[in-house]
Amino acid sequence: MSRFFSNKYASLVPYTPGEQPKEMQYIKLNTNESPFPPSKKAQEKAAEAAKKLQLYSDPECRALNAAMAERFCVNTDEILMTNGSDEILNFAFMAFCDDKTPAAFADITYGFYSVFAEINRLPYRIIPLNKDFSINVDDYIGIGCTIFIANPNAPTGIALPVTEIEKIVKGNPDNIVVVDEAYVDFGAESCVPLIKKYDNLLVTQTFSKSRSMAGARLGFGIGSRDLIADLNTIKYSTNPYNINSMTMAAGIGSISDDDYNMNNCKTIVENREYTVSELKKLGFSMTESSTNFIFAKSDRIEGGELYRKLKERGILVRHFDKAAISNYNRITIGTREQMQTLIDTIASILEER
Amino acid sequence: MSRFFSNKYASLVPYTPGEQPKEMQYIKLNTNESPFPPSKKAQEKAAEAAKKLQLYSDPECRALNAAMAERFCVNTDEILMTNGSDEILNFAFMAFCDDKTPAAFADITYGFYSVFAEINRLPYRIIPLNKDFSINVDDYIGIGCTIFIANPNAPTGIALPVTEIEKIVKGNPDNIVVVDEAYVDFGAESCVPLIKKYDNLLVTQTFSKSRSMAGARLGFGIGSRDLIADLNTIKYSTNPYNINSMTMAAGIGSISDDDYNMNNCKTIVENREYTVSELKKLGFSMTESSTNFIFAKSDRIEGGELYRKLKERGILVRHFDKAAISNYNRITIGTREQMQTLIDTIASILEER
Repeated sequence: MSRFFSNKYASLVPYTPGEQPKEMQYIKLNTNESPFPPSKKAQEKAAEAAKKLQLYSDPECRALNAAMAERFCVNTDEILMTNGSDEILNFAFMAFCDDKTPAAFADITYGFYSVFAEINRLPYRIIPLNKDFSINVDDYIGIGCTIFIANPNAPTGIALPVTEIEKIVKGNPDNIVVVDEAYVDFGAESCVPLIKKYDNLLVTQTFSKSRSMAGARLGFGIGSRDLIADLNTIKYSTNPYNINSMTMAAGIGSISDDDYNMNNCKTIVENREYTVSELKKLGFSMTESSTNFIFAKSDRIEGGELYRKLKERGILVRHFDKAAISNYNRITIGTREQMQTLIDTIASILEER
Repeated sequence: MSRFFSNKYASLVPYTPGEQPKEMQYIKLNTNESPFPPSKKAQEKAAEAAKKLQLYSDPECRALNAAMAERFCVNTDEILMTNGSDEILNFAFMAFCDDKTPAAFADITYGFYSVFAEINRLPYRIIPLNKDFSINVDDYIGIGCTIFIANPNAPTGIALPVTEIEKIVKGNPDNIVVVDEAYVDFGAESCVPLIKKYDNLLVTQTFSKSRSMAGARLGFGIGSRDLIADLNTIKYSTNPYNINSMTMAAGIGSISDDDYNMNNCKTIVENREYTVSELKKLGFSMTESSTNFIFAKSDRIEGGELYRKLKERGILVRHFDKAAISNYNRITIGTREQMQTLIDTIASILEER
C-alpha cells in the first residue's frame, strides 16, 4: 500500500480469483470454465470485429441488445450488457444500496458480494444458510434490504425453485431482489419471466459458463425498464464503452447459435450425474447440484488434503478455507475423459492411505 | 429513474459519449478515432484468442504486462492494464481521493473527471485555465489535492512540456498527480520516465487513439510499484478479469508492431498540419494541437451552426455547449482525403452565407 492510498479502503480485502497457474499443464477444474470451445459463430464474428477496432464499440450495444431481447423474450430496454456479470452486480450494489438500504446475502455464497459491499462502503447483513446449505425463504421476507441471491448458489450448487424465489420478490415489494443466475443453464429454472410481473426484480446472467465465453467478459442483467435505466446511469458514469466490439460481436454470434451452447450444457449435466454416481461409490457425499460443478466431501479424506493431493497429481479443484465448508471441494465438471481421470485419481489417493 | 435508485446519485449527470449515429454513413470526425485499421498482428492475435474464450483471461495480465514493460522501459509491477483508460482514471479517483483529499482539475478538460468525482461522491476543485486555454502551473503548486491533468489537454489539444508538469509533481510531494496522456503520441512529450524519480506520479495512456484500438478497450497506468499495488486493490475489488483475452492478445500484437502505430501517428500529424494551414486560409483560428484533433473557431460562422451544417452534409464533428468553448468545434484528424472533404465542405458552407 502506498502512503497515498485513501484510508477509506484501509481494511478492504479484495476478491481472490481461482488459481491460474502457468508453471504446468493442469486439468483445470477450479474456476467453472466450460471444457468446450465457444460457438464457431462467436469465433468468426469476433475475428471480423478485430479488423475494425479503430472505431469505438457501440456504447448503447444496440445490435447485441436486439439479439438478446429476442432470445429472452423481453424488450431491448429491459436488458443491460456488462463486462462480465461482476460488473452488473457491482452496478446493482452501487445503484440500489446505501446507508438506509443495506445489502443482504447468505453467509455461504459468491464471495464477491461482501467485497462489492466493502468497496462501495455499504452496510450489509449476512443471513446464515440452513445446516444443509439450503436457503430459508422466511429469513428473506420484508427485511428492508437489497437482497442478493445466487440461484443456483455457489459454491454449493443448490437451486431454489422459482416459486420460492417469487415469495422473496413478493415479500419485499419496496426493495430490489437481485437473482444471480450465473449457473442457471445447467438445470435450474430462470426467474427472467418474472420481471414482467415485478418491478423490484433484477436477474443477472453470464456468457462465461454455459456459453463458453469466460475469456470474453460478457454478462447481463434483465429487469424492468426503470431498473435498467438506473443501471445505465451508473454505467455512463463509470465506463460508457464497457464492452469491447469483439466481445459484442462474439455475443451476437453465440446467441444466434444458442442450440450449440445448450447442447453443451446437456453434456455437462450428463457428465455431472456420472461423476456424482462414481464419487458416491468412493464414499463421497455431495450437495444436489444444478450447476457445472459439484461440491463434494468425504469422511475418508479431509477437504484441504484432497485439494493438495489432486494438485500434486495435476488436477486443480477449488478449496475454500472458511470453516463451515473447509471439508468440501468445489469441482468443475469437464469432459467425460477429464472426469474419469479425476475419479481414478481420487480412487488412487484414497487407496494409498 | 426507478423508485429504488439510491438518493446518493440523485443529482448525478452521466458522461455523454460522442454521437454514434446508425441512420447514415458519416465522415466521423467526432470521437478522435484513428482512420487506420489496427496492426495486422493485433488482428491475428485477437482472432486466435477468440478460439479459446472458454477459459478466463489472465487476471494478472502477465504476458501483456511483460510486453508493455519492455516497450516503456519500466518493470512489470509498475504497469496496470485496464478496460480503457476510463477505468484506470476511475480507479485513481477511488484510490487517491477522499473527503480529506479532494480531486482538482481544469475547468476545460476531459469531461469525465467531474463525473468520476460525482459517482464516487468525492469533493473536487475546478481550476480555471488561462484565457488562451493554457494551464497556469502556479495554480497547481501545493494545493493539497489529487491533481488530474490531461496532457495534451482535451478538447483544446494544447500540451505542456514535461519540465512544466515536473514542477507540478515536485510541488505536490504529498499528493498524487495523474497525467492523462491519451493523446501523447501525436507530438507531445511523455512523463513516463519521471515515474522512476517521483513516487506521486501516475501516467495514464490508451490504445484507443495512436494504436487504432478504440473498440478493444485497452488503457493503462504507469507509476511506482506501490501506486500500482493500490490500483490493483481496487481492480480486484471490482472486476479482477477486467480485460478480456481477445483485447489482451490484440494488445500484445499491437505493441510488437508499434512502428506501424507510430508511423500512422506521423501521417496524422502531417494531415493535421495540412488541415490547420488550409483552415487558416478560410479564416479559422485554432489552438496549437499536439493531438489527433484540432479545436477550431471562426468569426465567420458560429460554432454550433458550423457543427449542424457539417452534419447535414455528412460530416460529424464534436461541439460542446459550454459557454467558454461554444464557438469552437473539435475536429478529429482523419485521412488526407477526409480532411480535404472537410475543408472543401467548410469552404462551401462559408460561401453560401
